[in-house]
Amino acid sequence: MPQLVDHHCHGILREDLTRDGFEAYLTESPDPAPPGTSFFDTQLGFAVRRFCPPLLGLDPHCEPDVYLRERAKLGAEEVARRLLTAAGIAEFYVDTGLPGDLTTPQELAGLSGATAREIVRLEHLAERTAAAAKDPAEFLAVLDGRIAEAARTAAGFKSVVAYRHGLDLPPEPPGRRAVEDALARWLPTGGARITDPVLLRHLLWSAARTGRPLQLHTGFGDPDLRLHRADPLLLTEFIEAVRPTRCTLVLLHCYPYHRQAGYLAQVYPHVYADLGLTLSHTGARATAVLAEMLELTPFGKLLFSTDAHGLPELYLVGARLFRDAAAEVLGSWVERGAWADADADRVRDLVGAGNARRIYA
Amino acid sequence: MPQLVDHHCHGILREDLTRDGFEAYLTESPDPAPPGTSFFDTQLGFAVRRFCPPLLGLDPHCEPDVYLRERAKLGAEEVARRLLTAAGIAEFYVDTGLPGDLTTPQELAGLSGATAREIVRLEHLAERTAAAAKDPAEFLAVLDGRIAEAARTAAGFKSVVAYRHGLDLPPEPPGRRAVEDALARWLPTGGARITDPVLLRHLLWSAARTGRPLQLHTGFGDPDLRLHRADPLLLTEFIEAVRPTRCTLVLLHCYPYHRQAGYLAQVYPHVYADLGLTLSHTGARATAVLAEMLELTPFGKLLFSTDAHGLPELYLVGARLFRDAAAEVLGSWVERGAWADADADRVRDLVGAGNARRIYA
Amino acid sequence: MPQLVDHHCHGILREDLTRDGFEAYLTESPDPAPPGTSFFDTQLGFAVRRFCPPLLGLDPHCEPDVYLRERAKLGAEEVARRLLTAAGIAEFYVDTGLPGDLTTPQELAGLSGATAREIVRLEHLAERTAAAAKDPAEFLAVLDGRIAEAARTAAGFKSVVAYRHGLDLPPEPPGRRAVEDALARWLPTGGARITDPVLLRHLLWSAARTGRPLQLHTGFGDPDLRLHRADPLLLTEFIEAVRPTRCTLVLLHCYPYHRQAGYLAQVYPHVYADLGLTLSHTGARATAVLAEMLELTPFGKLLFSTDAHGLPELYLVGARLFRDAAAEVLGSWVERGAWADADADRVRDLVGAGNARRIYA
Repeated sequence: MPQLVDHHCHGILREDLTRDGFEAYLTESPDPAPPGTSFFDTQLGFAVRRFCPPLLGLDPHCEPDVYLRERAKLGAEEVARRLLTAAGIAEFYVDTGLPGDLTTPQELAGLSGATAREIVRLEHLAERTAAAAKDPAEFLAVLDGRIAEAARTAAGFKSVVAYRHGLDLPPEPPGRRAVEDALARWLPTGGARITDPVLLRHLLWSAARTGRPLQLHTGFGDPDLRLHRADPLLLTEFIEAVRPTRCTLVLLHCYPYHRQAGYLAQVYPHVYADLGLTLSHTGARATAVLAEMLELTPFGKLLFSTDAHGLPELYLVGARLFRDAAAEVLGSWVERGAWADADADRVRDLVGAGNARRIYA
Repeated sequence: MPQLVDHHCHGILREDLTRDGFEAYLTESPDPAPPGTSFFDTQLGFAVRRFCPPLLGLDPHCEPDVYLRERAKLGAEEVARRLLTAAGIAEFYVDTGLPGDLTTPQELAGLSGATAREIVRLEHLAERTAAAAKDPAEFLAVLDGRIAEAARTAAGFKSVVAYRHGLDLPPEPPGRRAVEDALARWLPTGGARITDPVLLRHLLWSAARTGRPLQLHTGFGDPDLRLHRADPLLLTEFIEAVRPTRCTLVLLHCYPYHRQAGYLAQVYPHVYADLGLTLSHTGARATAVLAEMLELTPFGKLLFSTDAHGLPELYLVGARLFRDAAAEVLGSWVERGAWADADADRVRDLVGAGNARRIYA
Repeated sequence: MPQLVDHHCHGILREDLTRDGFEAYLTESPDPAPPGTSFFDTQLGFAVRRFCPPLLGLDPHCEPDVYLRERAKLGAEEVARRLLTAAGIAEFYVDTGLPGDLTTPQELAGLSGATAREIVRLEHLAERTAAAAKDPAEFLAVLDGRIAEAARTAAGFKSVVAYRHGLDLPPEPPGRRAVEDALARWLPTGGARITDPVLLRHLLWSAARTGRPLQLHTGFGDPDLRLHRADPLLLTEFIEAVRPTRCTLVLLHCYPYHRQAGYLAQVYPHVYADLGLTLSHTGARATAVLAEMLELTPFGKLLFSTDAHGLPELYLVGARLFRDAAAEVLGSWVERGAWADADADRVRDLVGAGNARRIYA
């Protein structure tokens, strides 16, 4: 089983979960499922029921309550250990910017004998910095230091500007004066959710200038975003403007605009793409979506990730769906004579691990 | 054969049709097919030729003229009886707002021993009301009464705001004064086609406040709309604004933005989606399109419909394409071990009937 | 093997190519592939390695360097002769507006015993005209004459307004005065790249008024365009405005907006669509993309092309991908009983040649 590098994921919860608590991680909705429905009745719910019960000694597709009962009996840590080990992920690049009592990158890696690196979420870094800085000049100095430090120690940066504003931002870096003015308005909030487009752009450019890879959420997510403002094509001008910094941009998730992301990855040398969240949430359709992503995206430009968060189940599901989908898609092309067998193996390994190792090196 | 609830359809024509008259119902174009082409040469045309001739004692895929000759010989009513009965639809929810001499919901149901309920088209209701109201105050009072009456007697409401303006409307309800001003401009037309965005929004909010399901045309249709202004994502702000009314929104058709609709159905508890017009017009591709819709849409949020209009053929085609597509898509997932057999049956029944029965109850 | 009409292609290079020079034609990127990657690692690169080596006596999927060595040994002309002949294209309609030392339509046709017609690229025609015209009045007179001449002798016109401005142009023809003012600004440049929207619209309308088919680049291409401004739906108002001229509009390429293009082809009698560039660049996925295009597009409205440019390989790849994809897509529908066998053959021949012959007659 070829190893995987999961270049974008999050920590998992330490505590046991109720059914409602568990279901909340099977959807991008912040609300409970409406009466008469369940978030287990989704592609992701079905994929969890397919892949996870056997690791707990149960039949695939067993009822959710049967699964959750056995899960509680074994305890969150033992379940995490089993599922994470079965996922076969060799390296985790963990975005540590999500709230909640989640495992650290080292804890996560420790559960399965993998290694871990950190991905620094820019908006979270700025909010933490704001809480301690008394004026714009101090904030900017501390922020610069922290970004420089992260560039030395972390695998890369991540931005959720898609959630905070939308990807339709002016492409050029904001001037120092505009940034200071925006800080003068925002710092007094003590680090409230950062949404000022001037500050969001300052973060993007500060990260880009380090030359480290910069991950950008694009496509679907929770309804805190507006999906049509998360089309990665809206980044086109920024992609062109930022190119002289020699940074690498990684478009995350992308669905349903993944063909658009594939186009950007083809025409811009510094643009890469992933399908993290997408394969998990499309479940039995991961095969079809991966195939679509392999239309325009050069094979040296696509990266595997799970975007797993909260549940160890999501690592296993993400890894299994990717492995199965890659085997099915590439295998069918080999069978039809469209691809050579050796090329199929090579592309699978590039997407699963090699591309990430190369660009985050 | 599990029964179906067709939650969105229209009446059928009573008279026999010429070839040109028949072809006009095989396309969303209001124009004749250009020289050298025929609207029978479409996925919908081929689907009609596949499913309908056997009900008239002919071979599948017989030539259009052979089919139309036999159809004329049997007569419109006998043909309707045969095709509608074969469709196996147990309940019709009929949008009665289309012009022309079409069957009533009761007539339609009577042809196949089904039951029928009405869907009230808001713009049509307003236009009928305008024809009789002498001033804004009277209009609003009569409209309120008719909407309240419809909320008691009909299955739900429908809006074609996508045709009349586009889905990019301000989300909030218009103020009373703005509505009265708009009425002062529009009422003197005696009920002309309603396109004023203030009035269109007033209709949407009036229906939403009743708490009954509100169907919204989204995606493709005749060229009276602008397709890029019918992307259901343009409704996002309205979806959020209207949520406190506790109404249910059903996004109709959706293509080619059906993945976007599936996203909305996943993240908003009060949003549902359908593929009515889409499956019929994509014919042999209905399988693929249904599969795409089953990516993000929770399985308790998708509804079958035919959107059949004018021709009884369209009921049979819509029902057969849905049944076959569901069997093929879900069956292939069961075969690959991705889904359990019992889950596949349950999801098929939810989409075919259960979800509609629950939300229109 | 049914013959094909390639209604949109370009000339090929006469000289032998280095590996970098060859790779540059396998991508829409103007940049070299970033370190560690190669443009051979794309669907188009794999398709070239699949279809072309056997024509040079090599195994399919041989290494790029092996292929290029043999190619150099045989020489560009002999390779072109073999690949073009194997493509089985009976008629080439050649857009002559690309720069570089490319074969003429007659040379191209001569290599494979086919016939050739010219497609006149409007922007190129204007730029050539500008270089010689001393004032707006003279420019317009000469341009009118050249367009009238092209209407008599060429197969049709092509516009790359998607590259020069985006498809979001005001739909109506610009007034004479506005055109003259724009010319007064532009003519002194001596024929620089034309980007003024007034002049671009004047070209579109001048071509449309001749009644000859007008090809419009839509969808993806090199990063000189903004993909979201190349959605063919942005042409909707122009499509309606230009209809009285009785011209035929052919939407080229379309991806990833090919479903949107199919919609336009269904609802407007004068709109046609093609998948030229798209099938080549999606390679093993050409089957799936062609199937999507056959959802709403009436079968009398879709046209085969290769959009081949520079490399004779691209003719063979485009033709083989189309033939194989059509056989697989239509064949699977026949197998499932969705289509009749005779209809499948008929549709394949319409798309491959018949539709082009009819509309460019």
